[in-house]
Amino acid sequence: MSPLQSDPERRLAELGIEVPEPFPAFGTFVSAVRNGDTIYTAGHVPFDGSSLVCGKLGDQLDADQGHAAAYLAALSLIATLKHELGDLVLVHQFLHLTGTVNATPEFTDHTRVIDGASDLLVAVFGPAGTHARLAIGVSSLPANMALEVQAVVAVRDG
Amino acid sequence: MSPLQSDPERRLAELGIEVPEPFPAFGTFVSAVRNGDTIYTAGHVPFDGSSLVCGKLGDQLDADQGHAAAYLAALSLIATLKHELGDLVLVHQFLHLTGTVNATPEFTDHTRVIDGASDLLVAVFGPAGTHARLAIGVSSLPANMALEVQAVVAVRDG
Amino acid sequence: MSPLQSDPERRLAELGIEVPEPFPAFGTFVSAVRNGDTIYTAGHVPFDGSSLVCGKLGDQLDADQGHAAAYLAALSLIATLKHELGDLVLVHQFLHLTGTVNATPEFTDHTRVIDGASDLLVAVFGPAGTHARLAIGVSSLPANMALEVQAVVAVRDG
Repeated sequence: MSPLQSDPERRLAELGIEVPEPFPAFGTFVSAVRNGDTIYTAGHVPFDGSSLVCGKLGDQLDADQGHAAAYLAALSLIATLKHELGDLVLVHQFLHLTGTVNATPEFTDHTRVIDGASDLLVAVFGPAGTHARLAIGVSSLPANMALEVQAVVAVRDG
Repeated sequence: MSPLQSDPERRLAELGIEVPEPFPAFGTFVSAVRNGDTIYTAGHVPFDGSSLVCGKLGDQLDADQGHAAAYLAALSLIATLKHELGDLVLVHQFLHLTGTVNATPEFTDHTRVIDGASDLLVAVFGPAGTHARLAIGVSSLPANMALEVQAVVAVRDG
Repeated sequence: MSPLQSDPERRLAELGIEVPEPFPAFGTFVSAVRNGDTIYTAGHVPFDGSSLVCGKLGDQLDADQGHAAAYLAALSLIATLKHELGDLVLVHQFLHLTGTVNATPEFTDHTRVIDGASDLLVAVFGPAGTHARLAIGVSSLPANMALEVQAVVAVRDG
């Protein structure tokens, strides 16, 4: 680790954020697959430790509630990466984040919602958390969850 | 091929599955592009040999019909990979599958639907068929098709 | 550059197309991230130089208007790549394009719409512009934009 590089584990501690246990994948898939220096994650969902955040943006949930849900989904993504890598300092660079928002046809504030995920990644990983992004509204999601975030991440060996 | 590695061509034969001809891409795109050891596929569609499976999940189609459609779309994906690689044993590892389900706003069983694709990949490729996944409901698809599956796949040279 | 390779900068000039300034990313993300020889772009939006093209396909916009909007989004994608690379000749190969169309549940002509982006890429980059593609209809997009296109692109050093 160079002196200029942020230490995500220390940053999490400074922010008072505890990384949860990885959320299990329900279905015939896994939460992450690594190929060389790249990890592809599954869609990660907003889980607050006891239940999933469900409902449609623009109907049962507003943009602020969506923002909070996206934070939880990104925290779940971090949990998966920690499980895969052992230490989050081995994250080299987030490359791309896809944010799918369970939204009504009239909803327009996807940016505010998915920023809840992106803001956390940048807060924890610094420049390594910066990413390209596609944020879209989808007509429905499994179990009526509020959103999912999926990432492609460059990693390095320990 | 190591003794522990499954042979997808033999597994297909054991399962009595015949790989169809690759389905043509309608539009200005191709079914697959390879860069180094990675193949990006286009969205693959459910084609039963004579017609596309069309309709919305939660309306004209139920989850079991969607599961069967996802199987067909994954079979079409396998056809494309066989065409690209010559022999499916050159599939090193499925990395990510995106499953987009043409669904009503009330539909919630995307996991059951897209498992129809994922189950086939794991049955044919074994551990190499395991993948991360994003399954979402979309408001509409080209030609009102029931779903599409798109994959990123690591491959090796023959 | 081999004699057989097309020069996208010259091709743009022949087509009378001027590459605009890169469109800024609104939100906690960047327009492109490079890892080794691969660039992941953000979702790019249809901007005509003064305003975004907004509205739903199948309602306020028809497929021809969508086709024109997809052209603009692909032009914005080219602007981002030029900004990243300096010279577009350093694009080695487009790998994958995701096209998300803000569409009514009844809309079926996504192929015509997203071809507006794909046609431009092939016209400018030749074989290097050929790509795999996923085209879907989404229930809503940020700011009610008509569509977004997101790409994965292999590049080389100058």
